[in-house]
Amino acid sequence: MNNDKIQIGLFGFGTVGQSLYTVIGRARNAHAEIRRIAVRDKSKPRAVEADPALFTENPDDLLDDPEISLIVEVIDNAEAAWHIVSEALRRGKTVVSGNKAMIARHLPELVELQRRTGAALLYDASSCGSIPVIRNLEEYYDNDLLLEVKGILNGSSNYILSRVFDHGEEYAAALRRAQELGFAESDPSNDIEGRDSLYKLIIITMHALGVYVAPEEIFTYGISTIHESDIRYAREKRFKIKLVAQVAKVADDRFTMFVMPEFVDKSKYIYSVDDEYNGVVIRGECYDRQFMFGKGAGGLPTASSLLSDIMARRYDYRYEYKKTRFRGRPEYTTDVLLRVYVRYADTDIPAILPFREIRETYTSPDYRYIIGDIRLADLLERRPLLSAPDVFLCNIPLFFTDKD
Amino acid sequence: MNNDKIQIGLFGFGTVGQSLYTVIGRARNAHAEIRRIAVRDKSKPRAVEADPALFTENPDDLLDDPEISLIVEVIDNAEAAWHIVSEALRRGKTVVSGNKAMIARHLPELVELQRRTGAALLYDASSCGSIPVIRNLEEYYDNDLLLEVKGILNGSSNYILSRVFDHGEEYAAALRRAQELGFAESDPSNDIEGRDSLYKLIIITMHALGVYVAPEEIFTYGISTIHESDIRYAREKRFKIKLVAQVAKVADDRFTMFVMPEFVDKSKYIYSVDDEYNGVVIRGECYDRQFMFGKGAGGLPTASSLLSDIMARRYDYRYEYKKTRFRGRPEYTTDVLLRVYVRYADTDIPAILPFREIRETYTSPDYRYIIGDIRLADLLERRPLLSAPDVFLCNIPLFFTDKD
Repeated sequence: MNNDKIQIGLFGFGTVGQSLYTVIGRARNAHAEIRRIAVRDKSKPRAVEADPALFTENPDDLLDDPEISLIVEVIDNAEAAWHIVSEALRRGKTVVSGNKAMIARHLPELVELQRRTGAALLYDASSCGSIPVIRNLEEYYDNDLLLEVKGILNGSSNYILSRVFDHGEEYAAALRRAQELGFAESDPSNDIEGRDSLYKLIIITMHALGVYVAPEEIFTYGISTIHESDIRYAREKRFKIKLVAQVAKVADDRFTMFVMPEFVDKSKYIYSVDDEYNGVVIRGECYDRQFMFGKGAGGLPTASSLLSDIMARRYDYRYEYKKTRFRGRPEYTTDVLLRVYVRYADTDIPAILPFREIRETYTSPDYRYIIGDIRLADLLERRPLLSAPDVFLCNIPLFFTDKD
Repeated sequence: MNNDKIQIGLFGFGTVGQSLYTVIGRARNAHAEIRRIAVRDKSKPRAVEADPALFTENPDDLLDDPEISLIVEVIDNAEAAWHIVSEALRRGKTVVSGNKAMIARHLPELVELQRRTGAALLYDASSCGSIPVIRNLEEYYDNDLLLEVKGILNGSSNYILSRVFDHGEEYAAALRRAQELGFAESDPSNDIEGRDSLYKLIIITMHALGVYVAPEEIFTYGISTIHESDIRYAREKRFKIKLVAQVAKVADDRFTMFVMPEFVDKSKYIYSVDDEYNGVVIRGECYDRQFMFGKGAGGLPTASSLLSDIMARRYDYRYEYKKTRFRGRPEYTTDVLLRVYVRYADTDIPAILPFREIRETYTSPDYRYIIGDIRLADLLERRPLLSAPDVFLCNIPLFFTDKD
């Protein structure tokens, strides 16, 4: 154990950066201290006050400082984050980051960079805020008995769906409310289009199965085109619609993954994950299902997760990416059959989607849908054709799980 | 990382030992192998078949074998377990144990023994079966923002209460059923008297707050005297009765802990922890509440937890007992006020219990209860007087939490 205070260089002083500043002040035994804060604009007014002498607009003031052994990166911009994080690792500094978009895109390079430089990158805050899902997948569920990880990974979209399903609000009003509360960004498209969940799922899959899959290879569908008729349909069947990310073994040597809205019935654990909460179900051969549940959005939960990563470095903790070295790692496949509900109007869904079997069709003057079985690969290939506002697609879970 | 297969010496080949044997066989990348199995009686027939050459009735065949670097201890008897575990540590062997009674009683000596010998003892399987609560408290919630850990830690008693509340069974029938299913031992008193939960709570508290409290200093009350009238009372108020263990900070420098049945209302996370499941709520200053939920009893879930501990040793993982070295560790206190429901008949509860304030009394020819506020210290002191079959005590949560 290292007893000196860890000297931190902090990139970014938005909601999360400010919360981290507060949390480190509160945790008496944290043995950590923020030495410098890099921001784009020093003069910008901020809710949390910190000593003005801490601030700089020059990243090198942090990267060049030999006293700073640990960089915390919590900025908005994924490309800028990549430059900071990779440069810090090259200089042998530990990095703690919550930037899922950057990590999901650059994970193979980041793993390689850590191996080459010996520097460590920790990012539990990148997935599910305060829920320690990465660390548990890496350390605790670290054998090949793991079968599936499935959950609600995005607090903003879940908040919106909760307002709609539990409070009868309209979608547009719920979105506005989420933005007012600071759960959704001013541009909420990453959240509601499922990309935020996708990035987290990519990171989770690396630690669950030891395999990296790039964002563009994964079918991702969000909730932006959800319509009153879809909500009514779900309510009549006593389902909730949740935006669900999942990775699941479909055979000993193959797994699949996707992000998609799903009709969730009452018997499932994730049914009761409401508001800005996240919930993750981990299924394994021997322990059946484990469920982890907690706040998935917000400055303080994320900051407490960053603090856990910072403190882990006192004991030289690092991700070993153990499963990337496993014999018989499963291969990613999209050659699996899903059952989906597709609502449409002008878009000619029956012509676009090669259903293997159609289970139900419904047609009325203002509402039409098909329920059918289709290969995930076919959905992925036709993904661009499914973005029109008249189309909404929702998974009817069938193949991998009976209870989540 | 160590690439050689870990050679395991296994003490005990009951349900858990047999499950571990099965699980290690299934986990291709476990890099572990059971080299020897010590049992009391080699000739006893067992459900899982293992090579007869593995078995021995002589503990020294395992302890003296220099090839065996890791001992897994899953025997029934706490005193025998203590001798095996302490001897193995003295010989520098790693030990993985699931024996909560032994660990809870000997924790300070076991910590000291690990420090002196450099050998590691891991015991995540001792608490909540497959839920990684110890490791998360030690590693992830490792700062002083933690406020409370509360949960259902015993699968057998929870199964019984579930049968009663969700299926309308009578208590005696539910207990028999639990025994038939192998959730409750033939002597189920540890489970239903709350001692099993107590042991787990002691271990959890060590890793949550860095403080050891001995079993006899902790108020522990089980469900063995629960009566139809208590169940009816709870049902009328739309509560479930759950056997709850909790440790909570009551001030910056003080914490309390106890095991007691509790009236749990629908808004609480633990309300929906049914059957043989365990559920733990971890509350902190910044992340609010986290909920972990999974199978708390049964051979395979426990075995997968043992496997996680075994695999952690490939990376030399050990508990650092970090929080025992924290500045300003909180002190244990029983000087807190609780609100309790006490049902009684012949026992003169109003004379025995010094209530600070009585909130309700109810008297009818065959059912009498008091609801009142009382110091935990007063309950603890009078604990022996509360064991008569006509008395049942149940916590009405009030002071530490509003939502669990």
